[in-house]
Amino acid sequence: MVSAPLTADDGKERVRLWLRLLRATRLIEAELREQLKIEFDTTLPRFDVMAALDRAPDGMMMSELSRFLLVSNGNVTGIVDRLVSDGLVARTARDGDRRAFIVKLTEAGTKQFKAMAAAHVRWIDAMLADVDPEEAAHLAGTLRTFQSKWEGGH
Amino acid sequence: MVSAPLTADDGKERVRLWLRLLRATRLIEAELREQLKIEFDTTLPRFDVMAALDRAPDGMMMSELSRFLLVSNGNVTGIVDRLVSDGLVARTARDGDRRAFIVKLTEAGTKQFKAMAAAHVRWIDAMLADVDPEEAAHLAGTLRTFQSKWEGGH
Repeated sequence: MVSAPLTADDGKERVRLWLRLLRATRLIEAELREQLKIEFDTTLPRFDVMAALDRAPDGMMMSELSRFLLVSNGNVTGIVDRLVSDGLVARTARDGDRRAFIVKLTEAGTKQFKAMAAAHVRWIDAMLADVDPEEAAHLAGTLRTFQSKWEGGH
Repeated sequence: MVSAPLTADDGKERVRLWLRLLRATRLIEAELREQLKIEFDTTLPRFDVMAALDRAPDGMMMSELSRFLLVSNGNVTGIVDRLVSDGLVARTARDGDRRAFIVKLTEAGTKQFKAMAAAHVRWIDAMLADVDPEEAAHLAGTLRTFQSKWEGGH
């Protein structure tokens, strides 16, 4: 069986989907940014770095961290520097390689992240309250399908 | 009829959905950033500003523009300054108010944006090729539902 030929409308539906994805993400991010500022006097990039490190109890190389966050190494370095001087992140040289640093959350960092993560779940849950859990699971599944394809790419 | 009580799992599904939304958006943005650089030697924030102005043939106030883009006025000002000096955007004082500026695409800006927009459709279509158009329309509809609720808020 031959699949239906692509029409211009198929492209339009995909672009419309992308514009909605982008808009939804930016709206949620704007709200998270505001809540993080109000409740924890912190920023979204700091939260993102701490969330990534919380998933890696053995720590991460700076290069892994920036690859995971999809931002440049330079941007991450500034954020990590501040987190280190605030005592929330520790930077240690890796065995046998004095130029390669491992960064990880300190005990204080882990504790603060736990509080932020719990609040984060509450905020997201309130923002997405209208999304039925089954619908959420379905949507998440669809997104995972194309995500895994991309993450494999370049 | 009483609706099912919320469980902790409902919250988890919504957070999972959010993390996937965020990841998918960042992956697509990273790819767009790369393509915009390669094909047009431009950046995503410049593209976003031009896209917003392209939808407003009569131009926009700076404050409208930054509200629409969900970024601070300061960030938008720098981008608009560069677009003005590149001849792609024109800034004119609004009648009767010398402090309020209207910005809009110039003819050259409109022409350049058309070329970028056409490429943008191609890139998105290629990236989302695995998403069935019907599925795309369904997903876009779901996202619109909660989006319209948020846009109304604060």
